[in-house]
Amino acid sequence: MGIADIVEQALEMAEPSEEEKRLVSEASRRALSLSEELFRGTPGFRSVSLEGSAAKDTWIRGRAEIDVFIHFSPDTPRALLEESIVSAGSRVISGLGGESRLRYAEHPYVEGVVGGLIINVVGCYDAERGKWLSPVDRTPHHTRYVNAKLSAEQRGEVRLLKSFMAGVGVYGAEIQVEGFSGYLAELLIISHGGFLTLLEAARGWRPPIYIDIERQLERRAAAVLFPNSPLIVIDPIDAHRNVASAVSATRLSEFILASQMFLREPSLRFFHGYQRPSVGEVRAEGRELLLVAFRVEGYVPPDVLWGEIKRSARGIRRGLEGWGFRVYRHAAYEEDGYVAMIYELESLVLPETTLHIGPPVWLSNAYSFVKKHAESSDTVAGPWVRGERLYALKRRETREAAVALEAGIAAGRLSISRELLEPIRRGRIISGWSGVLEEMSRSEGARSFLRSFLSGRPPFLP
Amino acid sequence: MGIADIVEQALEMAEPSEEEKRLVSEASRRALSLSEELFRGTPGFRSVSLEGSAAKDTWIRGRAEIDVFIHFSPDTPRALLEESIVSAGSRVISGLGGESRLRYAEHPYVEGVVGGLIINVVGCYDAERGKWLSPVDRTPHHTRYVNAKLSAEQRGEVRLLKSFMAGVGVYGAEIQVEGFSGYLAELLIISHGGFLTLLEAARGWRPPIYIDIERQLERRAAAVLFPNSPLIVIDPIDAHRNVASAVSATRLSEFILASQMFLREPSLRFFHGYQRPSVGEVRAEGRELLLVAFRVEGYVPPDVLWGEIKRSARGIRRGLEGWGFRVYRHAAYEEDGYVAMIYELESLVLPETTLHIGPPVWLSNAYSFVKKHAESSDTVAGPWVRGERLYALKRRETREAAVALEAGIAAGRLSISRELLEPIRRGRIISGWSGVLEEMSRSEGARSFLRSFLSGRPPFLP
Repeated sequence: MGIADIVEQALEMAEPSEEEKRLVSEASRRALSLSEELFRGTPGFRSVSLEGSAAKDTWIRGRAEIDVFIHFSPDTPRALLEESIVSAGSRVISGLGGESRLRYAEHPYVEGVVGGLIINVVGCYDAERGKWLSPVDRTPHHTRYVNAKLSAEQRGEVRLLKSFMAGVGVYGAEIQVEGFSGYLAELLIISHGGFLTLLEAARGWRPPIYIDIERQLERRAAAVLFPNSPLIVIDPIDAHRNVASAVSATRLSEFILASQMFLREPSLRFFHGYQRPSVGEVRAEGRELLLVAFRVEGYVPPDVLWGEIKRSARGIRRGLEGWGFRVYRHAAYEEDGYVAMIYELESLVLPETTLHIGPPVWLSNAYSFVKKHAESSDTVAGPWVRGERLYALKRRETREAAVALEAGIAAGRLSISRELLEPIRRGRIISGWSGVLEEMSRSEGARSFLRSFLSGRPPFLP
Repeated sequence: MGIADIVEQALEMAEPSEEEKRLVSEASRRALSLSEELFRGTPGFRSVSLEGSAAKDTWIRGRAEIDVFIHFSPDTPRALLEESIVSAGSRVISGLGGESRLRYAEHPYVEGVVGGLIINVVGCYDAERGKWLSPVDRTPHHTRYVNAKLSAEQRGEVRLLKSFMAGVGVYGAEIQVEGFSGYLAELLIISHGGFLTLLEAARGWRPPIYIDIERQLERRAAAVLFPNSPLIVIDPIDAHRNVASAVSATRLSEFILASQMFLREPSLRFFHGYQRPSVGEVRAEGRELLLVAFRVEGYVPPDVLWGEIKRSARGIRRGLEGWGFRVYRHAAYEEDGYVAMIYELESLVLPETTLHIGPPVWLSNAYSFVKKHAESSDTVAGPWVRGERLYALKRRETREAAVALEAGIAAGRLSISRELLEPIRRGRIISGWSGVLEEMSRSEGARSFLRSFLSGRPPFLP
């Protein structure tokens, strides 16, 4: 199959059916009118609007969400707005026949599932550009901008791109993924015209990449504003915001690599919804695996929890590396408050000896290095001189990764996020592939995570 | 004991007895007059002279050598001079009642042992300064210079210094040692006045060190002439020669460290002839040792052989390091053509897997890295992306140092000196401490070498 056929088929896979479109449009209408009704009379209330991919006709098949925005006047106190959203928002969801859940990251909103569709009720201010009062105030502006810029055909291109991003594992701006948001995908189609023209550009990207559709900022000014971003996409409705700030270097690089691979060997396996043959050949035997498993009690917003998990997992990695272990890779898994951090090491047990590198002989502390190591009982050989420098061969105190980690956690010597310290202390350290295999057979999600960790390949590689 | 007492005792140990002095002086006289007699009439012959430490009264007890120099006129062909030395020189030794041996490095000479004393018969040209015709023509100038500069008392200081250098293991300019020559020791006493004043200076040395007694050269000019020398001592009779060119950074650093240690904790154990208690606590059990043992046939001048041994031992070390082994230290031993190179590793067996670090995704070879590793059967995990770069975890082909080394030697993939390649190929590789222990129990010399290697300490450390 040529690339045109692949893209055509992928577009068909991503395009919602007429039935799905009808359902979304109907559910949106009902959600908006019920919201209008239930919020009317609330202090500060002004209007309701549909936002997100449903409002832009850019969602991919089966992944519609209906984002109902409740607009308040800018003088409404924040606490009042939030209270109204929690109380009236819940009534909207139950009025539609769903069960509501309070969600928040920086800003609370109410979520519910009605007839298989996720409905979010979000409160925003009718803020002027640049006078944002809450983090979601830009959203209605984004919707207007995208709707004004995208042709009907380009909405299909957005679906293609989102499907591609989901298929190659880079879709989602949440901290767990550190990838591309839906709005970012839309802007990339606007800036590059279409799916294939974007991929043709992306195959040659060398980060940092700078995209400024409305030419609002000098490239050099942007580099100063966003110094550590591998991808900078200036928000057309706010020049001081990088729409791609969530995108990590790894995710961007995976997108670049996936673009290269797809253009060379186009295949449907790059797209969301493609049924991959199960990864059968992944082997755990003989792999040097270490697992830290623990439980987090109570609801923690996913972005908060994942921020803590990622920070702590990196802290543990640095600790292991500091003790001399070579860590090849690590990843984390979360399921209903159960967290597993997995590490693949060069070896779970370090050699018996370790080389201490001392000062050059002409430094004043050379003498004390010699005295210390000549007299201590854990010196295996030396101290000796090579070139200008002193060395000593020492017997290692702790050779096993699990033992070192246990002690490091107990002593609080690791850079673990404060909120996870106690859960991790109460948790377990599992050393060796067979124990890890057993632990991760606890659920289909855990098994699948372990399989993908062991294979170590992004999903778009065969 | 205070430092003055220690130095006084060390001086007594280093000073030859009156009996030894008498024997040396008598043997010198006999060697000179017999040489005069046997060389008379030889074409180009001019005169004989006594050189070396016997001529300067600076040898340390029990280590006298009598260097008889036969002077030729500068127009004597080199081949003729060498022939005369070989034939008439041998007759000098046999005439004195000894058995002669032909020795050479750059320049042939005849060596013999007569009444327990080593006698060397060396041929030189009566060359003017700067018009040297052979590498030993400077020697008579050195003798004159030293005799003119050293007071009677300072000759004792030279003996002290030579004894200290021998005791701490840095005495000898031969390639095996890479240390200080006798002439260099004499110049250091001349430049610094005495033994303790030299050590007081040396304790504060930070290489490179520059010493120019006769102020013949700008320091900057010397740095250009001798760019890699940690110690530069300009020859008073030849400004373009560094007397310390044989001194390695390691030997100089050991001398600096030994000076610091001796001044802080003066002891007779720093001097030649001190009976060290045997190093009883050295343990081989559990050490990761590798030995390459082979035999060199026929006489090879020690400096030539040791040059090849050191070069090849380093080549093998670099080979091991290139395959991923961590080499802590290595050393070599030679005894009558039997050579052993010993290596202490972090581990004789490498982990099962190794990380291959690929290109960043934006380099054109990223695609081929992905294809190659995605398809090869020795890929354990990956390829994956981290940051901008690609990685793959691979199964190691060869895990054992001995196996890797055997294959590397057979394939000629190591930087081994050409002359040792065949001997090493015919030799043996011994892996593991018990095999090494057994192999090195072949002689007292080998046992003592192994003990000192295992302890890994320079001899002046307790």
